[in-house]
Amino acid sequence: MDRPRHQGMAKNTNMRWRLPLVCLLWEVAMIVLFGVFVRFGAEADAHWEEEKREMNLTSDIENDFYFRYPSFQDVHVMIFVGFGFLMTFLKRYGFGAVGFNFLLAAFGIQWALLMQGWFHSFKDGKILIGVENLINADFCVGSVCIAFGAILGKTSPIQLLVMTLFQVTLFSVNEYILLNLLHVKDAGGSMTIHTFGAYFGLTVTRILYRPNLEQSKDKQGSVYHSDLFAMIGTLYLWMYWPSFNSAISDHGDAQHRSAINTYCSLAACVLTTMAFSSMLQKKGKLDMVHIQNATLAGGVAVGTSAEMMLTPYGSLIVGSISGIVSTVGYVYFTPFLESRLHIQDTCGIHNLHAMPGLIGGIVGAITAAAATEDVYGKEGFIKAFDFTGVYQTRTPSIQGGFQAAGIVVSLLMAFAGGAIVGGILKLPVWGDAAAENCFEDGIYWEVPEDEESDVYHMHNPDKPASP
Amino acid sequence: MDRPRHQGMAKNTNMRWRLPLVCLLWEVAMIVLFGVFVRFGAEADAHWEEEKREMNLTSDIENDFYFRYPSFQDVHVMIFVGFGFLMTFLKRYGFGAVGFNFLLAAFGIQWALLMQGWFHSFKDGKILIGVENLINADFCVGSVCIAFGAILGKTSPIQLLVMTLFQVTLFSVNEYILLNLLHVKDAGGSMTIHTFGAYFGLTVTRILYRPNLEQSKDKQGSVYHSDLFAMIGTLYLWMYWPSFNSAISDHGDAQHRSAINTYCSLAACVLTTMAFSSMLQKKGKLDMVHIQNATLAGGVAVGTSAEMMLTPYGSLIVGSISGIVSTVGYVYFTPFLESRLHIQDTCGIHNLHAMPGLIGGIVGAITAAAATEDVYGKEGFIKAFDFTGVYQTRTPSIQGGFQAAGIVVSLLMAFAGGAIVGGILKLPVWGDAAAENCFEDGIYWEVPEDEESDVYHMHNPDKPASP
Amino acid sequence: MDRPRHQGMAKNTNMRWRLPLVCLLWEVAMIVLFGVFVRFGAEADAHWEEEKREMNLTSDIENDFYFRYPSFQDVHVMIFVGFGFLMTFLKRYGFGAVGFNFLLAAFGIQWALLMQGWFHSFKDGKILIGVENLINADFCVGSVCIAFGAILGKTSPIQLLVMTLFQVTLFSVNEYILLNLLHVKDAGGSMTIHTFGAYFGLTVTRILYRPNLEQSKDKQGSVYHSDLFAMIGTLYLWMYWPSFNSAISDHGDAQHRSAINTYCSLAACVLTTMAFSSMLQKKGKLDMVHIQNATLAGGVAVGTSAEMMLTPYGSLIVGSISGIVSTVGYVYFTPFLESRLHIQDTCGIHNLHAMPGLIGGIVGAITAAAATEDVYGKEGFIKAFDFTGVYQTRTPSIQGGFQAAGIVVSLLMAFAGGAIVGGILKLPVWGDAAAENCFEDGIYWEVPEDEESDVYHMHNPDKPASP
Repeated sequence: MDRPRHQGMAKNTNMRWRLPLVCLLWEVAMIVLFGVFVRFGAEADAHWEEEKREMNLTSDIENDFYFRYPSFQDVHVMIFVGFGFLMTFLKRYGFGAVGFNFLLAAFGIQWALLMQGWFHSFKDGKILIGVENLINADFCVGSVCIAFGAILGKTSPIQLLVMTLFQVTLFSVNEYILLNLLHVKDAGGSMTIHTFGAYFGLTVTRILYRPNLEQSKDKQGSVYHSDLFAMIGTLYLWMYWPSFNSAISDHGDAQHRSAINTYCSLAACVLTTMAFSSMLQKKGKLDMVHIQNATLAGGVAVGTSAEMMLTPYGSLIVGSISGIVSTVGYVYFTPFLESRLHIQDTCGIHNLHAMPGLIGGIVGAITAAAATEDVYGKEGFIKAFDFTGVYQTRTPSIQGGFQAAGIVVSLLMAFAGGAIVGGILKLPVWGDAAAENCFEDGIYWEVPEDEESDVYHMHNPDKPASP
Repeated sequence: MDRPRHQGMAKNTNMRWRLPLVCLLWEVAMIVLFGVFVRFGAEADAHWEEEKREMNLTSDIENDFYFRYPSFQDVHVMIFVGFGFLMTFLKRYGFGAVGFNFLLAAFGIQWALLMQGWFHSFKDGKILIGVENLINADFCVGSVCIAFGAILGKTSPIQLLVMTLFQVTLFSVNEYILLNLLHVKDAGGSMTIHTFGAYFGLTVTRILYRPNLEQSKDKQGSVYHSDLFAMIGTLYLWMYWPSFNSAISDHGDAQHRSAINTYCSLAACVLTTMAFSSMLQKKGKLDMVHIQNATLAGGVAVGTSAEMMLTPYGSLIVGSISGIVSTVGYVYFTPFLESRLHIQDTCGIHNLHAMPGLIGGIVGAITAAAATEDVYGKEGFIKAFDFTGVYQTRTPSIQGGFQAAGIVVSLLMAFAGGAIVGGILKLPVWGDAAAENCFEDGIYWEVPEDEESDVYHMHNPDKPASP
Repeated sequence: MDRPRHQGMAKNTNMRWRLPLVCLLWEVAMIVLFGVFVRFGAEADAHWEEEKREMNLTSDIENDFYFRYPSFQDVHVMIFVGFGFLMTFLKRYGFGAVGFNFLLAAFGIQWALLMQGWFHSFKDGKILIGVENLINADFCVGSVCIAFGAILGKTSPIQLLVMTLFQVTLFSVNEYILLNLLHVKDAGGSMTIHTFGAYFGLTVTRILYRPNLEQSKDKQGSVYHSDLFAMIGTLYLWMYWPSFNSAISDHGDAQHRSAINTYCSLAACVLTTMAFSSMLQKKGKLDMVHIQNATLAGGVAVGTSAEMMLTPYGSLIVGSISGIVSTVGYVYFTPFLESRLHIQDTCGIHNLHAMPGLIGGIVGAITAAAATEDVYGKEGFIKAFDFTGVYQTRTPSIQGGFQAAGIVVSLLMAFAGGAIVGGILKLPVWGDAAAENCFEDGIYWEVPEDEESDVYHMHNPDKPASP
């Protein structure tokens, strides 16, 4: 039954002209920019046969496609099914979770291909793309999916698109500063993706603070089957995280090592999450919110260091700690952030991405600073940190310092960017819903109106009806 | 509660002897035919060591398995989870959607291995199979899954098996004509899979027209959670489509390029679909039917051209257009087809596969006709279109003409084949349900009869019952 | 509404201190043991560049990572999503199915890396791990997931962890006996994983026999949507089983062949399962329990022989038979086991894993005994069965004998181990629930308490409320 509505100025949430306009203008812009700038990289171009000869490659299997495509597909699943379904836990917001995540990610990857392309794959006036660019574009929108988690249920699709536009831009700038100017390693994106994405999203949701949000409190929970849908998202993120952290590492041992470290960290994280979920509850019962989220913190927390010689036991330690921090965060920090700091964090990204992201950045800095030629081997040492060219003389401890600087830069970019973008999203033109309509699919989606109960009262047609 | 049933001749939908008989006879036939014909190809045979020496390969990694197996698994997921779950949107037909799709695909791949094997992998009286054959078998039943979408909910499992038997046969003939006689390129199957499959299915459903289908109108909609199940199907199709279009392309740049083009096309398609879904609705709300289906049209529409030098911006254009065409189709064409042409298309395959398939064929013909040695490089040009042997003298514009001919042949095969098979399926021996029992799992499945509500009224056992 | 509780001694199921204690102690132990023993293998270590030179490898693509990582990820999905969701069919135990499976598998893989490492990857006092170790660890906990299926809904999470600890240990010993002492082939684990895991679990559930289990009979069934969730598990197991059986086979033809054989066996299995499911039902309706489970028996039954020259038609035969045996098992054996032998097998693992596992072991023994140099080629013959070193003189028929001995050893280990572990789990300290609380998530999980019906009565907010 519908509750009566209301009372005071109803907001105009009709998307009919605004959403199409934004989508279509955007797509036309993309076509023009792609037409001007984007071409196939050498390994995807039909001239590959000539290229192969020049590079002295004897086999097609040396094409980067075969090194990275399986990982790319795993990352792709994480972005669209992983993040999408993780957010379906809300009882009435499943369409919005999966559907808007789909929209913003599809929108964002096109822009990311351009932005990251200008910074990293620009040659003779063209952006040359290959499978690694696709992975990086997915990574970039991953940070938007994270920020989406903070404002889930409270924003219109247009706000999400506007946020995506700006966040992808800022992500690319931040990434350029870290990877190219500071020469920092961050293959799994503890800093560039998680720290930046989460603090950006938290800043945005702080600016968009809704004092009357308790009006939709009844819709902020889950129902039994929505929790199971969310577990689909959780498990795909958990299972494929080794691919995420290894997807753009160097060929060979680095990809191999990243996958192993991440596997170990995630396994440990599950145990400490379960332990603290039970311990922090009077009756010792497990809480699905923790299982759905904190079990993933181990992947975030080795995002920088996974490709380094973190070692399997180092990964277990990092994973264990991050599971504890994340679970404790859900129990104590999230309520605190909401009541005291007015940060309404729908999915608890502070616990899943922000804190573990910081841990990841710090662990990366320490692991880099502790690197020795003995552990890495002479060649491995140079290759792992890319100590060539102008960086030839960099020492591990200096590298550690730059890694730490990378954390600070990411935080500053996130706060400043989030504040500006939050301010833009506060303009009253984007069609967001009133507080009492938050977390409700019916605002932006056609929702089936049938009596669900039908489906459960089904009987074999040849049996008499039950009384 | 069960509605009273009725009135007039009840149809005999009991499958007890018919379904087992068909399945078991069929499986015995498969065993015999496989025993006579099917053997391992050189790369899967234990003689591989000798083969490797002969082919002068230095490493096991040169085995085709490593080029194609990851893509094969993605395609496999698309066929069984993708198509299966995409069709679970109906409130009362989830078992049939997933289960019958499972049945017909498992049935069809065996027959496809034989049929396609006779045409393409026959040597010294034996069909020699490898991973590429598995992919092609999956592709072939993909066209049956598409046709299933048109008749979903209205046919018995035996009808589906009979249709699969004939459709796989006709598919293989059509594919042989296109690929071998016309020497057409169609790696992602815009023509062979989508155009053929969809128009075949539409013709079948036209022949099986049910004038009283509005008797089960109440079951033709979705419920909230069935729409989320369907989104699982949508997303897996969407995410893995780059693998679909690149799975059987040439090693190296062609596979790489196909994946990139498809990725771009699909991203653009999401935006135009969302735009038109909102625009064509008075209240500007998004419709899950469009999001579940039209977002995929971009993958269909580059099925022929993805491995060509379509370029990323070309892909964006094609994807954008196909999203628009498909969404408009759902809003205007589907009702028209049903009311005027008596084509009852349950899943709207006309919008998702037929029209985008035609677009795909046409775009392929144009892209082929526009090919130049400049763009492809001398070697790349010959390799991309396989202009060797008797085709050495073919020019791009002639190739474009043959590509166009491929569309026409596929259409003719689909209409003629669909008409014949539809006629066969009309025979009153296959056990299909009466109109008022369509879209209802209870006819062919044991359905749990419990009160679903139980599960939601669960309380902690140690709490007092709520009043 | 909650039924009144009761009557007699309530059991203490509060996990608050016990579960955290076990998890945290365990994780600390793992960190210490990993710290002492586990290091990166040569292909994941930063010294790889030197290693590559030594091994005379010219390309990074020769790293084992690229041969096995895609299969590893598929196996990973099978363990966590496949087994996890397969068991969500129970109407009130979805959290426990997915969540406890997650817990025990994350717990078990760490211990398996150690146990299997000591047996197989121990060098100079260190366990050197790579992607193959990750696959083997997943395989090992696969056998625990199988055993979990027998006791699903009747045990506390601590019991599951205790069982995992012991079962992983026994698995590793059994595996060592088979692979190293008997020199048996079992790449897909028909004996080591399925036969051992299933009979172990059946013995445990026999020891834990609950005479009053009919008190929770109402919760032992499924509901409509829980059956669809379970189909997600089924399909991922079915689709990825070719990766499971080929994941640790020799590079090249063996992996290729394993995948093809498994693909064929599974396809055939679906048809015979459907046939018998319909045939054994008076009304000829299909039963979701069979479709969810028996369709997978074909993968189990070629687990030993898939990498041998079983041939595609041989696979069809094995798959067909195992589908029949498994379906008949669900209809006749499971009730018999429960009523006569007091074996309460929640998921019917006797039908899905035990019997097909035995078939798999036997087929493997026969296939090995029937091997000839003619069929395998001289080199292929030696490579396939590793007839080198001290096994140089082994003949196929002797190998067949050892394969058969492997079955017997696995059975004995399962019965003895299961009896001991079952006895340990019977101790009254583990916090299992009373019979009337079995199959109920509310005992160990926070379950959302809302009125589910809300979600289905959603209307567009701008419409008047329905009366």
